[in-house]
Amino acid sequence: MSDTHTSPMKYKTITGKEIAALLHPRPAVLVTCCDLNGAPNVLTVAWHTPLSYNPPLIGISIGLTRYSHNLISQVRQFVVNIVGISSIEALKNCGQYTGALDDKTSLSGLTLKAAHKVKPPLISAALGYLECQVEQEVDAGDHTFFIGRVMLAQAAETAFSNMWVSLIGDVPLCLQRDRFGVYKDFIRND
Amino acid sequence: MSDTHTSPMKYKTITGKEIAALLHPRPAVLVTCCDLNGAPNVLTVAWHTPLSYNPPLIGISIGLTRYSHNLISQVRQFVVNIVGISSIEALKNCGQYTGALDDKTSLSGLTLKAAHKVKPPLISAALGYLECQVEQEVDAGDHTFFIGRVMLAQAAETAFSNMWVSLIGDVPLCLQRDRFGVYKDFIRND
Repeated sequence: MSDTHTSPMKYKTITGKEIAALLHPRPAVLVTCCDLNGAPNVLTVAWHTPLSYNPPLIGISIGLTRYSHNLISQVRQFVVNIVGISSIEALKNCGQYTGALDDKTSLSGLTLKAAHKVKPPLISAALGYLECQVEQEVDAGDHTFFIGRVMLAQAAETAFSNMWVSLIGDVPLCLQRDRFGVYKDFIRND
Repeated sequence: MSDTHTSPMKYKTITGKEIAALLHPRPAVLVTCCDLNGAPNVLTVAWHTPLSYNPPLIGISIGLTRYSHNLISQVRQFVVNIVGISSIEALKNCGQYTGALDDKTSLSGLTLKAAHKVKPPLISAALGYLECQVEQEVDAGDHTFFIGRVMLAQAAETAFSNMWVSLIGDVPLCLQRDRFGVYKDFIRND
């Protein structure tokens, strides 16, 4: 199946911020965190990955200048909220505005509720969430990679059955630059 | 746009290997590495993320028991090859077989070629690739998270223009459990 191209492809060198775009599209999630008094903040994050099955570890890369960066560093807890198309306005807003200036949760019409194992809140409309305790902070250039142990993972019964399904018409969104899309099962292109 | 669900969703707790599936679908890439003599190996990887713009850093999480784990640890270089539908057989094979027993490159019909900045090879059919030098190995449970500095990034001229486009009918594949899919631009569901 491979190497079906009859003539060699021509390549161009990619530099700067475009390098990261080679690893997109990626699921866009809303990370919730809070300050030491419990005041919440929300940030759109696409730079995340599972890391380990046992113990269950995941990682998120957060820019050093982001307001959420200091909150997560101080409180050492965060929640990854997997949201769907119904939360697209929040995904857009929480990537563009800074929590230091705006109340992004009201800005985006988000409803929050208490988490089970950690201090940062859950997003009520989330299809699923991962409540995380920071185990390690890794310096990564202009970002910090926060490694979190998953203390509790939950998913909407109708939306997740071993993998995401689209029974309720709401599926996780993938981000590619400033465009949002959805995953479609592979259809063989022959 | 948020919280359009009229009744609260019912959640179930997700445990074990299914926790990672909450962060899928993810682009499935082929990571090439080699031993100290230059003998290549290929591994399908979906647990990866950009980490930093400047310097350009990315990370991949590799299971401790994978043959490629030791190769990357020894040689401290790897290449992330972004491949498309034409390489789906390789993506399937290189996630299931171990390089310690099989020659996965011939198994998958992959053609390799020399990289520019690192020892591990490129996959000729790749839509793009990131040649990486390991900067840091981070212990992450049953995996190691390898942080790589991107020494060279290239993309096929016809396939990438600020983001992935589908001009040539070959686009990066996303993996959700054992199913492959493609990204579709968002169509508002109302």
